[in-house]
Amino acid sequence: MTEAAQTLDGWYSLHDFRTVDWTTWKMLPAEERQEIVHEFLGLVEKWNKTQAEKQGSHALYTIVGQKADFMMMILRPTMEELNEIETEFNKSRLAEYTIPAHSYVSVVELSNYLPAGEDPYQNPQILARLYPELPKAKYVCFYPMDKRRQGEDNWYMLPMEDRRNMMRSHGMIGRQYAGKVKQIITGSVGFDDYEWGVTLFADDVLQFKKLVYEMRFDEVSARYGEFGSFFVGNLLEEDRVVSFLNV
Amino acid sequence: MTEAAQTLDGWYSLHDFRTVDWTTWKMLPAEERQEIVHEFLGLVEKWNKTQAEKQGSHALYTIVGQKADFMMMILRPTMEELNEIETEFNKSRLAEYTIPAHSYVSVVELSNYLPAGEDPYQNPQILARLYPELPKAKYVCFYPMDKRRQGEDNWYMLPMEDRRNMMRSHGMIGRQYAGKVKQIITGSVGFDDYEWGVTLFADDVLQFKKLVYEMRFDEVSARYGEFGSFFVGNLLEEDRVVSFLNV
Amino acid sequence: MTEAAQTLDGWYSLHDFRTVDWTTWKMLPAEERQEIVHEFLGLVEKWNKTQAEKQGSHALYTIVGQKADFMMMILRPTMEELNEIETEFNKSRLAEYTIPAHSYVSVVELSNYLPAGEDPYQNPQILARLYPELPKAKYVCFYPMDKRRQGEDNWYMLPMEDRRNMMRSHGMIGRQYAGKVKQIITGSVGFDDYEWGVTLFADDVLQFKKLVYEMRFDEVSARYGEFGSFFVGNLLEEDRVVSFLNV
Amino acid sequence: MTEAAQTLDGWYSLHDFRTVDWTTWKMLPAEERQEIVHEFLGLVEKWNKTQAEKQGSHALYTIVGQKADFMMMILRPTMEELNEIETEFNKSRLAEYTIPAHSYVSVVELSNYLPAGEDPYQNPQILARLYPELPKAKYVCFYPMDKRRQGEDNWYMLPMEDRRNMMRSHGMIGRQYAGKVKQIITGSVGFDDYEWGVTLFADDVLQFKKLVYEMRFDEVSARYGEFGSFFVGNLLEEDRVVSFLNV
Amino acid sequence: MTEAAQTLDGWYSLHDFRTVDWTTWKMLPAEERQEIVHEFLGLVEKWNKTQAEKQGSHALYTIVGQKADFMMMILRPTMEELNEIETEFNKSRLAEYTIPAHSYVSVVELSNYLPAGEDPYQNPQILARLYPELPKAKYVCFYPMDKRRQGEDNWYMLPMEDRRNMMRSHGMIGRQYAGKVKQIITGSVGFDDYEWGVTLFADDVLQFKKLVYEMRFDEVSARYGEFGSFFVGNLLEEDRVVSFLNV
Repeated sequence: MTEAAQTLDGWYSLHDFRTVDWTTWKMLPAEERQEIVHEFLGLVEKWNKTQAEKQGSHALYTIVGQKADFMMMILRPTMEELNEIETEFNKSRLAEYTIPAHSYVSVVELSNYLPAGEDPYQNPQILARLYPELPKAKYVCFYPMDKRRQGEDNWYMLPMEDRRNMMRSHGMIGRQYAGKVKQIITGSVGFDDYEWGVTLFADDVLQFKKLVYEMRFDEVSARYGEFGSFFVGNLLEEDRVVSFLNV
Repeated sequence: MTEAAQTLDGWYSLHDFRTVDWTTWKMLPAEERQEIVHEFLGLVEKWNKTQAEKQGSHALYTIVGQKADFMMMILRPTMEELNEIETEFNKSRLAEYTIPAHSYVSVVELSNYLPAGEDPYQNPQILARLYPELPKAKYVCFYPMDKRRQGEDNWYMLPMEDRRNMMRSHGMIGRQYAGKVKQIITGSVGFDDYEWGVTLFADDVLQFKKLVYEMRFDEVSARYGEFGSFFVGNLLEEDRVVSFLNV
Repeated sequence: MTEAAQTLDGWYSLHDFRTVDWTTWKMLPAEERQEIVHEFLGLVEKWNKTQAEKQGSHALYTIVGQKADFMMMILRPTMEELNEIETEFNKSRLAEYTIPAHSYVSVVELSNYLPAGEDPYQNPQILARLYPELPKAKYVCFYPMDKRRQGEDNWYMLPMEDRRNMMRSHGMIGRQYAGKVKQIITGSVGFDDYEWGVTLFADDVLQFKKLVYEMRFDEVSARYGEFGSFFVGNLLEEDRVVSFLNV
Repeated sequence: MTEAAQTLDGWYSLHDFRTVDWTTWKMLPAEERQEIVHEFLGLVEKWNKTQAEKQGSHALYTIVGQKADFMMMILRPTMEELNEIETEFNKSRLAEYTIPAHSYVSVVELSNYLPAGEDPYQNPQILARLYPELPKAKYVCFYPMDKRRQGEDNWYMLPMEDRRNMMRSHGMIGRQYAGKVKQIITGSVGFDDYEWGVTLFADDVLQFKKLVYEMRFDEVSARYGEFGSFFVGNLLEEDRVVSFLNV
Repeated sequence: MTEAAQTLDGWYSLHDFRTVDWTTWKMLPAEERQEIVHEFLGLVEKWNKTQAEKQGSHALYTIVGQKADFMMMILRPTMEELNEIETEFNKSRLAEYTIPAHSYVSVVELSNYLPAGEDPYQNPQILARLYPELPKAKYVCFYPMDKRRQGEDNWYMLPMEDRRNMMRSHGMIGRQYAGKVKQIITGSVGFDDYEWGVTLFADDVLQFKKLVYEMRFDEVSARYGEFGSFFVGNLLEEDRVVSFLNV
């Protein structure tokens, strides 16, 4: 266990991307659509309550481009709750008019390449990062990633010291974006197809590009990063749900 | 035959992942849905009987995320039985409301990198592992994998001694999780697209992440492991089937 | 032409994998289903006649897992006949209730890495292998493969002598399975996406795994083999067609 | 921040590719089709107005081959506007008869491998390139691309000096096509699956092939370029929309 | 421009692969099917006229296996004409009963690795190859390909002299098949996902396999060739269209 970095794990996370079937949606009478939107907002209301009680958090964003129409990101203390929320949505009437587009299962994670000696679970800042309330930032960016294991570029064959140093320098780039980009790392080894999910929040969408691009020159990403699909979206506040689904 | 590790082979295995078509399912009258659930539970009852008679085993889990809604893992003494069970499910009424999402065909396997000299088929512990009753653990994790054959990292070109040593150290990581994670390895060379399937069972879902992540730093995985899609799920006990399918 | 191994080519081959649309199939009145099965068995009867006249051969297997429900493997003297049989099936009523799942186009091939000096087309054993009657073995295994051309592992850049030696050793593994596994190699360079198709027949399905696994340690496979999807199935004799399609 | 090239960023960009469902389109009464085309041309008219006010730009092209039937390329000052335009199209009646085929999200970008010392945002030529009016060229070519990070060929591990020199020589090839090919580079790091999108406009479609082929021998592309799908299309002027959709 | 081989470019080319939806096709009254076939043959008649006037050429083949049911290969002087023909087919009634299966956009190309000093466009043989009438050969083979850019095997980093020598030796293999296989190379850099399309015509289908297999040992293919999907088909003469579509 000495060579694998320890991780601290918080809430479980489901990113659930959906595409609206506008054609069948438009076929409904306006009143029925209204009822369906109302039912969906009822679900969101329940999630709000859970969030107010610090038992989880969630975020809704519309996604730009054809990959999906909107994303629901849900954080909860257990896998069962994620599964229940997903199934409850699937059984809702709105789900009849949406098509699953993509999903990602992971758990909020802090990688423990930190100096030893303190008990991280006693640290309120660390607890706030493991059980975060997702910010109401204007923009979201999500992508999954792996550390590469390929020929000479094999992250998992490096000594821990080298990995720690590279991660420290990597973290320093992230810190330059403090206040501009909030970054939530979720671990998905054993849960989904990549090793990590990265969810970024910002009020200036261009900061996503600047941050990811700058990091790409950092050795951790340049030599060892493998990236999946990128999703970018705009905040879908509850009062915009009605207009978004209005046809 | 000296260079290829011998394997011990037990029951044949089918992992069958399905997605529910909730929209058409909801269109049915409640009574009809009830009949269909009843028919499905009748199938499960038959499987229970087979399991009680030690003629096979099975497990049902709901899957988190959009990859599937539930998984049936079935173990049987012959390929014909797997095929019959699959076809029987396909002909059932529930199947009309599910969509095939993924499947995996393999056979329970113990890799024989063990010290020579004993007849493994006389060993009750080994027999119990070849013909296991699947545990009612709260969580399941499934993924397929290959041993890499790429440039300098070619598992199949290594001397058997090296492979045995690496597998021994690999096994030692697994043993640290004894009591926390039950691991069933199934071989699929000649049967499906990867060389092995790995099915993990645990009552603490985080142990999957810890185990797979720690192993990733082990040379066998770091240099020689190629992984397919990961599925994670929650136990679907028979008394939860009704509520899961209740709309 | 000296460097490329000569090949001997026999019958053209079509592997045609189909999935049954059980939902719509079940909607039909039993009588209509019976007529459709009868029509399909009429096609098979024609194929039987062709086979009896040594003008081709065929095999029917149900496939385990979701990749397909059944496979028809057809051998004929010309590409036109394969195309006609495929189109005739497509126009049949059963085809309305099946979905194309996969196919493979190739030609029975013997690679001529043999000692020179004899005219292989005068050899009755070789002719029997080029124009084979497919066995009624209990199990089938099909997969396509390429010889690798990647960095240092480039089969097509090796001197013929090396390739011949490796193929000879490779063939010796196959020969150990004589009587247990019948192997039909079909060439598909210029016809389909891989260079070869491999179809194995056995009465003990575990022999597929043993053979393919043992070969994987042979340099030809270990360094130079690239494999596509694997399909495994159970013999579908004509008298089982009725029960297979009975709902 | 010294090693990452600075970029200048202009309007956000959405490439939206659609396929017409001709079968259902033909089922409509001619009058209804006319209304739908009219509604779509109303959208285009709004886009024209935005373009006239220098608040964005757009281009319509029919695409050759089955990848899509037509493409809408939209430039706007914010991600929200792209999302709104996309959603407005999705809610339009024409969208009921089209199928999403592909999309790409990016931002007009000038890579700043230029000599230092001037403020590029004061330069009218640079501003014209960041906020361009898309030309009414007869042909369009679109493809996404990455800079490679693979073994010895890792763009992001090169010193900035080397990258700048290679980009300069690369740019010189582009400059030879001045007047023949107009090139709009959009950055998509953090926004979509590749790092850049390349959109070329020309009145002689063969110039796309000449330019891309010549560049492929340039070290930047030869060693470091990874290319996605290529789309080629013919200008769809508003007066051709009616005939294109006429059935 | 010295390092990139010059190319000579002729007619633009569209390979359009279609699958017949036999189920809905069979639902039509025979008379209606007859009208639809008649309409399609009217399109072909127009193409015949264009071919007689040397303003283009075309070929129809049925495809073996499930990749497609038939292919239309169309050559025309402009991209606009290809787009119009494609759209005209899409609007035809037959298209309602076909599903797009694959397409490829390219331009007839002669690579100019020839000795300098003559103006190729004055050479009638070269003109005949740039603007060819497609032969009525019994069989067709189509596949797209790239020149590899990977580690040590990077075609685009080779000196032109080396590329020319390799292409010359490559061409000599092709020449051995003169009279047996007619080969049409189309360039697709900037137009579609691979760099070239290769379309082979022969009256003996086995010659495709022999030619492609023999070339695979040639360094150009062995080290530098990357191949896409292969399609093989039988000539679909106009008088066979009726029987092919007869149900």
